[in-house]
Amino acid sequence: MDTPKSLTKGDELYQLIKRLFPICRSITGNGVRRSLEIMQEYLPLQVNEVPSGTAVFDWIIPKEWNIKDAYIKNKKGQKLVDFNDSNLHVLNYSIPVKGNYPMKELASHLFSIPGSPAWIPYRTSYYEEKWGFCLSHSQLQSMQDDDYEVCIDSTLEPGSLTYGEYYLPGQTEEECLFSCHICHPSLCNDNLSGIAVVLYLAKMLSTRQNRLSYRFLFIPGTIGAITWLSLNENKLSNIKAGLVATLLGDPASFTYKKTRSGDEEIDKAVIHFLKFSGKDFRLIDFFPYGYDERQFNSPGINLPVGSLTRSQYGQYPEYHTSADNLKLVTPEKLEDSLNAYLAIADILDNNIVYINQYPKCEPQLGKRGLYQKIGGMNEQEKELRRMAMLWCLNLSDGKNSLLEIADRASIPFDVLKQVATVLEENGLLKCLTR
Amino acid sequence: MDTPKSLTKGDELYQLIKRLFPICRSITGNGVRRSLEIMQEYLPLQVNEVPSGTAVFDWIIPKEWNIKDAYIKNKKGQKLVDFNDSNLHVLNYSIPVKGNYPMKELASHLFSIPGSPAWIPYRTSYYEEKWGFCLSHSQLQSMQDDDYEVCIDSTLEPGSLTYGEYYLPGQTEEECLFSCHICHPSLCNDNLSGIAVVLYLAKMLSTRQNRLSYRFLFIPGTIGAITWLSLNENKLSNIKAGLVATLLGDPASFTYKKTRSGDEEIDKAVIHFLKFSGKDFRLIDFFPYGYDERQFNSPGINLPVGSLTRSQYGQYPEYHTSADNLKLVTPEKLEDSLNAYLAIADILDNNIVYINQYPKCEPQLGKRGLYQKIGGMNEQEKELRRMAMLWCLNLSDGKNSLLEIADRASIPFDVLKQVATVLEENGLLKCLTR
Amino acid sequence: MDTPKSLTKGDELYQLIKRLFPICRSITGNGVRRSLEIMQEYLPLQVNEVPSGTAVFDWIIPKEWNIKDAYIKNKKGQKLVDFNDSNLHVLNYSIPVKGNYPMKELASHLFSIPGSPAWIPYRTSYYEEKWGFCLSHSQLQSMQDDDYEVCIDSTLEPGSLTYGEYYLPGQTEEECLFSCHICHPSLCNDNLSGIAVVLYLAKMLSTRQNRLSYRFLFIPGTIGAITWLSLNENKLSNIKAGLVATLLGDPASFTYKKTRSGDEEIDKAVIHFLKFSGKDFRLIDFFPYGYDERQFNSPGINLPVGSLTRSQYGQYPEYHTSADNLKLVTPEKLEDSLNAYLAIADILDNNIVYINQYPKCEPQLGKRGLYQKIGGMNEQEKELRRMAMLWCLNLSDGKNSLLEIADRASIPFDVLKQVATVLEENGLLKCLTR
Repeated sequence: MDTPKSLTKGDELYQLIKRLFPICRSITGNGVRRSLEIMQEYLPLQVNEVPSGTAVFDWIIPKEWNIKDAYIKNKKGQKLVDFNDSNLHVLNYSIPVKGNYPMKELASHLFSIPGSPAWIPYRTSYYEEKWGFCLSHSQLQSMQDDDYEVCIDSTLEPGSLTYGEYYLPGQTEEECLFSCHICHPSLCNDNLSGIAVVLYLAKMLSTRQNRLSYRFLFIPGTIGAITWLSLNENKLSNIKAGLVATLLGDPASFTYKKTRSGDEEIDKAVIHFLKFSGKDFRLIDFFPYGYDERQFNSPGINLPVGSLTRSQYGQYPEYHTSADNLKLVTPEKLEDSLNAYLAIADILDNNIVYINQYPKCEPQLGKRGLYQKIGGMNEQEKELRRMAMLWCLNLSDGKNSLLEIADRASIPFDVLKQVATVLEENGLLKCLTR
Repeated sequence: MDTPKSLTKGDELYQLIKRLFPICRSITGNGVRRSLEIMQEYLPLQVNEVPSGTAVFDWIIPKEWNIKDAYIKNKKGQKLVDFNDSNLHVLNYSIPVKGNYPMKELASHLFSIPGSPAWIPYRTSYYEEKWGFCLSHSQLQSMQDDDYEVCIDSTLEPGSLTYGEYYLPGQTEEECLFSCHICHPSLCNDNLSGIAVVLYLAKMLSTRQNRLSYRFLFIPGTIGAITWLSLNENKLSNIKAGLVATLLGDPASFTYKKTRSGDEEIDKAVIHFLKFSGKDFRLIDFFPYGYDERQFNSPGINLPVGSLTRSQYGQYPEYHTSADNLKLVTPEKLEDSLNAYLAIADILDNNIVYINQYPKCEPQLGKRGLYQKIGGMNEQEKELRRMAMLWCLNLSDGKNSLLEIADRASIPFDVLKQVATVLEENGLLKCLTR
Repeated sequence: MDTPKSLTKGDELYQLIKRLFPICRSITGNGVRRSLEIMQEYLPLQVNEVPSGTAVFDWIIPKEWNIKDAYIKNKKGQKLVDFNDSNLHVLNYSIPVKGNYPMKELASHLFSIPGSPAWIPYRTSYYEEKWGFCLSHSQLQSMQDDDYEVCIDSTLEPGSLTYGEYYLPGQTEEECLFSCHICHPSLCNDNLSGIAVVLYLAKMLSTRQNRLSYRFLFIPGTIGAITWLSLNENKLSNIKAGLVATLLGDPASFTYKKTRSGDEEIDKAVIHFLKFSGKDFRLIDFFPYGYDERQFNSPGINLPVGSLTRSQYGQYPEYHTSADNLKLVTPEKLEDSLNAYLAIADILDNNIVYINQYPKCEPQLGKRGLYQKIGGMNEQEKELRRMAMLWCLNLSDGKNSLLEIADRASIPFDVLKQVATVLEENGLLKCLTR
């Protein structure tokens, strides 16, 4: 996939979202397959199919759902609600239906948002066989107490659940997991923004030498996470950190939802990044609801997976409505989110425990010319690097990782990393874990 | 003991206090015996007698004290101070005295409160042989520099210390201790209120199926606690939680004084109750003074016993005066206190560690119809119960009791308990400790 | 050394500073030797010489530096800058120089403080061979673009590093370390104040019976600490607490810089003292810069050494200038600092773990007449001592030292100490550690 050089990374992310937006995705079916095909143009991700009926922990992969068309016509034959206008119009996973219904009967199959009369809600019924239409409240109010022709041309048949996975091996088998859900239809922030950010994160990390291995999951929400975890239990012990990526294109500042313990390396890494970002942010404690962090943090899985979003789950007005569209997300915010994920991956990748090789008193830095080696900067930057050196030496007793030193010293991680590299090259520090 | 149906629980508590109020109690003697007899009309408590001279740890049970009459007469033969008006008039444990005393000599035996001239103070001299009278400061001031006829018709002779005990066995031998002191004469809040609340707590718990065993002590302060502990060392290891009950009828909001460690199950239970009570409350750290929590929390006894009162020890104006009378306590506050003790016992009794039987990812609640089983409530209550279910499942990894889950989830304990019961019935949770 | 009886301790400290002030000290040389000789008049401290070239950890003892004279003359032969006016005028450790220099060339060897034009800065170049002059900015500005005669009559030759040490044995080998630097020339607060306080602390402690042993170091900064640590590694395991003493004569209130862990006995002792001092104070976390606490807290040495100063390191305007002189320090503040160090040593010396010998319930204090034994005070003091007794008994379970009990009870350490002594004499407490 070639992109013109003049595009910013944010533009590229936005273009990808634009291509994926019209497709009608669900937790299974061709919409997901088509989306993964497009993503494969950017990244050689592996696409897996798991047959309907497969038992995954306490769950069973459901029948595959596909849809061709859906509408509600009035007696004049005019389409009042049309799937081709927005795939949100159909209750996702609707069973097929065709026939005439009086308004009285039809009403219980219609969903709208009285408080936001111009927006179509997004609703699903995966595990209860139902049919229904979502429409704007003004559409609903314009409908008379009349008979309507109703058609949902869908199928719900044995098939498979489809998901994508990309594994990027590093120097160690310890891995970091990034996961996003791919089951939402025409909704941008939730979660095309997550797909775009994770895809580009993978793409960019794949061009680097990494210490850690990385795994990227593109899975349908809930059932997809449960499926992947069920099929990959043997891989879980390698996962040292993870993030669920979603809601990454809207104007809000960042929200970090912590892991179940709240005190994992990923928690420290994200919070360190946010503190030094110079921007406002929100920290929220883990709660067993929201996105797939619910599954990753279940007691029998117990993976240290947090979630970094912009808006908070369910807390922005456009959430799960037709207003979560291409206007809500911007190239700037998408790029800002990608940069955050890159910075956090950088912290995790470089979060090494060093051992001071001259632990008795301070080593004589002057005779090694170390003050010069960190040079080229202004006095304030030099001073910061000198303090960073002393902190590294003082706390590198085998009990503190570089991130813990950065936190205690209140010095940005990347400064500590630069300084530690110089100290290591000069034989003053030695890596404990590498 | 029959009580008319129209009486509230608060009225019943108040009636009991009214019956006990006139009796002249002390740390030994017939006043205590008579009080325990009345209490036996309500609860089949066991009454024990421990002979004077018995060594109990570092102490010795003192001689038994009894009193028939006491007065101060002026030269005209008028009784200026009369034991029959208030048993507070005699320095509790006064040795007998009879004779004429000039005011100069008598003065050092008279106690009053200049700052509250209408109130008689309550004073004792258990371990130093003395005699004395307590009187209102206005009484004192009306006395001339004259001769007075003084009589205290008391006895201090070998006898015994009397206390009451009621043990209510439950499914486990683990027990919860409730203790109140019975040594105060005509004082209502300190501590007839505690006696009444503990008696009714015992009465009400005895009609239920309990997991825990419960022990209720009705003992004279300090020496009674030391006596019981000394004679029952073999029982202490079963005591998992306890409360010293006192000052439970006055208008103040609740005060909880923590155990010595401050982090015991009883601390968490009381604090959880208070936080969700919707009312103001005070938490105070343990200090080695106050009521019998001093003995229970001594280093060689080391029982996790806190104290839940309304006013704070020694911090209300009527404390240890004749104003701590039937006007200070009310049926409403007594009932509120009883309800608090019942709610706390309920938390302790149901504070179980469950193990999630489907710990890998979330179990599929929908297919079990669990959302229906918690039904019958409004949407907000349903939502709270759904979150409670997810919290229970997420944290039931064997490390968290139901109370710890309730605290972390900020959900009232009784909601957690209801939900956990439903999950247990559906095979999703299993009890670790039962 | 006899001192007239009318002098306060503060006066004595000030007089000592006055004697030491004119001497040109450095990290080696005769200035240090002369200073230690004077100090030996007060305290029989041992003076040690470590030859140049000796390897001490990562460092090497440098050549010894001595200086006789230095000046800058103008063409008229007038001395514009004269070492005899202030020994700060010479860049400390300047190599010898003699000759005529045009201003253009001389300028790079001249140091002043534009912001404080009347003050001479204090600068050093120990490990880079340089020469230079420090002068007031007004002196500098009065110099023309002219030729100057420059002379620094110094020597930099093999010799030795000189330091002083005084060891005061106590009942146990556990020791407490007090260290001050002796390398600064005519500067009072930094660090003649530290020398004077440590010297008098040693003098006064040497007249007492101490439980702990005490060690007092009078060493050049950095290289002196490294030298002592390198030569005395076998002694380090005895050191249980320590303080670096400096900046103790200026008007500021106290600043305590914690040890690396921040939670050592010395941290608790100093903080307890400061909290009960009734005065304002500052607590700062350890950072690997400042004075010799850097070396003591390096990871391979890892001694619990904090630093108690008045002003903060580098944070007062006169720091490292000629204004840090006899006017900045006062007898009052010096005495206040000495008293603080004495009080802290007193806490450490008496910080014993006692075991309650009557741990089951409270022992009967009344029968032992203990309330009388603490008597002679007013009611409030008696009440405080009674509570102190109960706290001592309650917490002396082998897990709490006297200082920890004092902190939890919020009672001044010396009250706890008095009370614990009485309880010990009465057989109620027994010392665990003595």
